Amino acid sequence: MKIALAQLNYHIGNFENNIQKIKNSINKAKKQGADIVVFAELAISGYPPRDFLEFNDFITQCNNAIENIAKECVGIAAIIGSPSKNPKKDGKDLYNSAYFLADGKTKHIVHKTLLPTYDIFDEYRYFEPNSKFETVEHKGKKLAISICEDLWNIVDNPLYTLCPMDEMKSQQPDVMINIAASPFHYKQAILRKEILKSNASKYKIPLFYVNHVGAQTELLFDGGSLVINKTGEVVCELASFKEDFKLFDLHEIDKKDKIISNHKSPMEIELIHDALIMGISDYFNKLGFKKTVLGLSGGIDSAVTLVLAERALGKEKVRAILLPSKFSSNHSIDDAKKLAENLNVAYDIIPIEAAYESLTSTLNPYFKDQPFNITEENIQARVRAVILMALSNKFGYILLNTSNKSEAAVGYGTLYGDMCGGISVLGDLYKTQVYELANFINSEKEIIPNNSITKPPSAELRPDQKDSDSLPDYAILDKLLYLYIELRQGPKEIVEQGFDKKLVDRVLKMVNMNEYKRHQTPPILRISSKAFGMGRRMPIVAKYLS
Amino acid sequence: MKIALAQLNYHIGNFENNIQKIKNSINKAKKQGADIVVFAELAISGYPPRDFLEFNDFITQCNNAIENIAKECVGIAAIIGSPSKNPKKDGKDLYNSAYFLADGKTKHIVHKTLLPTYDIFDEYRYFEPNSKFETVEHKGKKLAISICEDLWNIVDNPLYTLCPMDEMKSQQPDVMINIAASPFHYKQAILRKEILKSNASKYKIPLFYVNHVGAQTELLFDGGSLVINKTGEVVCELASFKEDFKLFDLHEIDKKDKIISNHKSPMEIELIHDALIMGISDYFNKLGFKKTVLGLSGGIDSAVTLVLAERALGKEKVRAILLPSKFSSNHSIDDAKKLAENLNVAYDIIPIEAAYESLTSTLNPYFKDQPFNITEENIQARVRAVILMALSNKFGYILLNTSNKSEAAVGYGTLYGDMCGGISVLGDLYKTQVYELANFINSEKEIIPNNSITKPPSAELRPDQKDSDSLPDYAILDKLLYLYIELRQGPKEIVEQGFDKKLVDRVLKMVNMNEYKRHQTPPILRISSKAFGMGRRMPIVAKYLS
Repeated sequence: MKIALAQLNYHIGNFENNIQKIKNSINKAKKQGADIVVFAELAISGYPPRDFLEFNDFITQCNNAIENIAKECVGIAAIIGSPSKNPKKDGKDLYNSAYFLADGKTKHIVHKTLLPTYDIFDEYRYFEPNSKFETVEHKGKKLAISICEDLWNIVDNPLYTLCPMDEMKSQQPDVMINIAASPFHYKQAILRKEILKSNASKYKIPLFYVNHVGAQTELLFDGGSLVINKTGEVVCELASFKEDFKLFDLHEIDKKDKIISNHKSPMEIELIHDALIMGISDYFNKLGFKKTVLGLSGGIDSAVTLVLAERALGKEKVRAILLPSKFSSNHSIDDAKKLAENLNVAYDIIPIEAAYESLTSTLNPYFKDQPFNITEENIQARVRAVILMALSNKFGYILLNTSNKSEAAVGYGTLYGDMCGGISVLGDLYKTQVYELANFINSEKEIIPNNSITKPPSAELRPDQKDSDSLPDYAILDKLLYLYIELRQGPKEIVEQGFDKKLVDRVLKMVNMNEYKRHQTPPILRISSKAFGMGRRMPIVAKYLS
Repeated sequence: MKIALAQLNYHIGNFENNIQKIKNSINKAKKQGADIVVFAELAISGYPPRDFLEFNDFITQCNNAIENIAKECVGIAAIIGSPSKNPKKDGKDLYNSAYFLADGKTKHIVHKTLLPTYDIFDEYRYFEPNSKFETVEHKGKKLAISICEDLWNIVDNPLYTLCPMDEMKSQQPDVMINIAASPFHYKQAILRKEILKSNASKYKIPLFYVNHVGAQTELLFDGGSLVINKTGEVVCELASFKEDFKLFDLHEIDKKDKIISNHKSPMEIELIHDALIMGISDYFNKLGFKKTVLGLSGGIDSAVTLVLAERALGKEKVRAILLPSKFSSNHSIDDAKKLAENLNVAYDIIPIEAAYESLTSTLNPYFKDQPFNITEENIQARVRAVILMALSNKFGYILLNTSNKSEAAVGYGTLYGDMCGGISVLGDLYKTQVYELANFINSEKEIIPNNSITKPPSAELRPDQKDSDSLPDYAILDKLLYLYIELRQGPKEIVEQGFDKKLVDRVLKMVNMNEYKRHQTPPILRISSKAFGMGRRMPIVAKYLS
């Protein structure tokens, strides 16, 4: 039996596009003599379709797409993810399903059992869990078809009380096929491989796994579809961060000499780099945007963002704006210019002094003798935002946000100022990770001026300001934030690891008090297991550690 | 048996506050001779605690609070909602539980079975559903204790395949006790009463129901706790939108002459009015904010917002800022001044002309010969935001957002301009509802100048601009939006109701294309069954009807 894996970049709700891609792959698989071609979870709709699933019209379009594609499945079978209606009155109205299409029609529908409802996942919001477990027979082989999470309940502290493969194993399936929408984070590719290998070893059945690839706003799908033999060895891994298609012979994959040696995994920072570029690129492609603008300060965050934007969109699609104030240092302007020149990216220098002065003069009668404080700092950041957004409105540039996770965490940024933008590129990277990424970018030659990397970080919103005036050293802050945000440790646990109690209390209070700011920020490209945004849901008026 | 209902306003994560309130009510109930006092769902933590539930430290504090409160329960029993740990390895780590406290300790724990996971609810994100059904015996009576949604599966298209009361009825309970966190929308109080009455009638058992009251950011809990006799008649309804406490004798509530006649329900617009005032008030109280500022344009939205703010916080806590540009009409300034004077609220007039001119001069070398367009309109809105936020930063005023649901739906507003603010007061009211609310406010005397109500709505960002230049009449637009947003109808269904197809396509496209704007707006006080925000989750890069 020949099985083809089609790893495609779908576009949520863009049925025309998704149907065409799927049909192309079916025809390609046919030509190569495949018996079955496998697509990802909810391939028809794109993942995650979110509340579009509550629209009958949307579900009708999914059903029509399946009917349309089924007609293509003559002489070949296809396994494709799509929502399907629950025919029963009780329970949720939909299932998250894998359609088995052959002979020009739907032959079987398998429903997802384990519905991830945590972090960025909301599946029980929409879907009824499956409770019937049947393998699918095709050309004399028994296929155990499952959907993503269905294979993930084999960990130490299982989230579910049921394991779909345990229910199916008595039917002695010949092969496992899992269709998935498993988003990237920088430890996920390795974790995912381990989970899938464990399944193959446990049930002693080969496994074909097809994942999504491409970005859906903040969610980055890295692909990396897999074929694993029945002893739990990886036979093949499809491309990361791009579409791929491969055909396999089921009878061949258990032969030892066919195994591709498990190539060295790329460094985490390299994965992050590639994921962010895909994230920018798909955000622009899927929304039909052509070009981007960003404020280039001479600091590390906007420098790294500019490099990634240039790599994602090409230098002619990127415009950098230097927005100096009287507090900007000469070296900042020089560093920014040098970077733009290194990348051969167009840049303009638009001083904000006049607009800033005009605003403070307007406000002066009301401020009277109040001293310069954070208000005036924020005015500068907001004037910059008004200018960048005006360029965006006038010429159709989309503003890229350049904030990082450390400052988003503690609220070290100006709402409606530097927190503006269509998408946040670095919002899931702690400051120390931004440095790491800058060094990775510079690993072959100096692209980002070294001075941007080595000088002490500063917002340059008042004379001689340094981030360290307001914040602990990033090396300490970032570790502390990681324990709190990614690992959800409480103050006691964090202090027990050697952090100063006062500092811990102060930082956690800053994080929790600034929930309101993060509520109003752009979507953030997600590269960690816990990014700000849809995967971290916090009440705003709460009083906990704040 | 005497049962007291304690309807309290909890504060998420503010354990000290919640514990003290609960203890006060226990002591009050004791003094009045109650056998049991009943509190709401997740009373200990406040509802919804959201991802704080993922912190062990948070759960430990909940457990400590229960232990602490249990000591108070001597000579009285209490039923209190709190998360509890799932002792089993499989499944989610927590239950959403009702603690039965008596003799100074926890005597029983009942877990929630039906976990709402739709709209604003995320309960399966955190909790394992209950699967054991046992009544609790106390002083010779059998209590069927359940939690909120557990009683809601008796509708035509049930969301769940199980009905907890069906499981318990064979144990012949004497009374049903349901603890809830059922948020307000303008049709919810009536719907809720019907559901609860149906339960009492169906099982022929009296029902004591305790709901939350108070606002948690966008979620407004209206209270309205209920006692219903076994024939399904409402014996008593506790206060709406404020704390309340009442004691009942179980033996008395089936006596006909004790029944309080079902008083006329208030008009929906009155409920909305009261809900919004509670929403503003609790947002400020729970975050410790003292005073508010808003931009007063002379239009209807800011006028209604100002009245509600004044009613919520008092006139001395509210400051109105008129921010005229060269496009502002004289009547707008007059209308705004008149309203501020009617309310006796302090106001200032800060013209934006100089700052606007300065910004356009700064941009002029880049804009060159480009004509005035939406860019310049947005600059005006953003200059206003910079000024309002500067006053906020300098003096600690919190900016109230004045946008309505119609404009949020179609993107008729400036991101980082008039879409700014700490909380959106009218963001869940269509424009036609804002007018209705204005008329309700003016029902006894003219508070909002009639001219603000009768003149054609305009953003006044270019000469002689009218909303109707860009948008269909609000009477049509709002109906169409309601069908799409609240009822989730598709384009075909909407056209079948007599709307013009081109208009429908254009409006739905506007709604879907502006998801990115709504992603970055303040939380919106929720008064409908489908508000923008946490209860409506849409992908941004999607291409569906857009």
